[in-house]
Amino acid sequence: MATAKRFSTVINGVMVDDLFTTIDAIKATPAIAKFKFRIRNQWESGSRNHSTVDNFYGATQELSHPKPFVLEADEPAILLGKDIAANPVEYLLHALASCLTTSMVYHAAARGIHIAEVESSLEGDIDLHGFLELDKNVRQGFQGIRVNFKIKADVPDEQLQEIAKLGSAHSPVFDSLTNGVPVSVTAQRM
Amino acid sequence: MATAKRFSTVINGVMVDDLFTTIDAIKATPAIAKFKFRIRNQWESGSRNHSTVDNFYGATQELSHPKPFVLEADEPAILLGKDIAANPVEYLLHALASCLTTSMVYHAAARGIHIAEVESSLEGDIDLHGFLELDKNVRQGFQGIRVNFKIKADVPDEQLQEIAKLGSAHSPVFDSLTNGVPVSVTAQRM
Repeated sequence: MATAKRFSTVINGVMVDDLFTTIDAIKATPAIAKFKFRIRNQWESGSRNHSTVDNFYGATQELSHPKPFVLEADEPAILLGKDIAANPVEYLLHALASCLTTSMVYHAAARGIHIAEVESSLEGDIDLHGFLELDKNVRQGFQGIRVNFKIKADVPDEQLQEIAKLGSAHSPVFDSLTNGVPVSVTAQRM
Repeated sequence: MATAKRFSTVINGVMVDDLFTTIDAIKATPAIAKFKFRIRNQWESGSRNHSTVDNFYGATQELSHPKPFVLEADEPAILLGKDIAANPVEYLLHALASCLTTSMVYHAAARGIHIAEVESSLEGDIDLHGFLELDKNVRQGFQGIRVNFKIKADVPDEQLQEIAKLGSAHSPVFDSLTNGVPVSVTAQRM
């Protein structure tokens, strides 16, 4: 990206000048690059809980969204829920799809590549033998996830594949999910 | 869980009889345990895209939510978005919190442990040097995630810690995120 040309326009809805300004600012002050993202979750009952997304840390300061976002979670009836919201693993797929897409679009913009449309379909396999402790050889989590992109862009076929790879090469959620993240869990009495 | 007693009541909002009925059904017909979760994502512009959560496969049949759930994604202004929705890595934290909580609550219910309240706070570190290709030694994804639970339950201190561990021991998202998942990405022209 350091060798990309500078564009004075908006590409793929991304303000490319601002993107390069950010890069220059980080080169000058590396601490600007450190972000801390946060949520708070509250259990309601059974499979129902919700998260509030409010503040985060970045560019050496505490920041807030203009209003808190509330994300509901539930389970379908077959998994003993009331089915009023997507379930946690569906949220994980959304996180992956949205991050791959945004990463692809931003990095294409930085290279001056115009994208007209992007859609993706994701499917992941879970075997409840893991969650229910019925088979120790079956993991609790996804056994595999398949992502299929459909991209509309006026580029040769090989560049279409390169565009798709911009997503997986840069996406924080793709990296987190494919390479794993250390997660510490502590608990205290309320 | 195979050795847990059967309860004829609802515990933690979980229909425990139905949970054990599910377990018995899976023991009799293992294919019931195989689920495929899906989403479809559509890019809007820049950092904005949304996923639709509609159908899934489980218990040997195609199933649908009563209505499709639509999940928006955006980025805050400092990351060049319009900040109309949570961003992908915040959705990932929500997926983790909601899954840990539901897993804890279900498995406590299966053991006859009553929980009154659960809250959690999550924070994860990301260094944009990774996403922006400014330092090859910095990963794109979360460097670490900290989860802190506050649990209200009429149990001794050591059992409070055991309750918290029920979440991380069984959660599909926790397993996916800490141990990694194979993700295949393909792309075709729209």
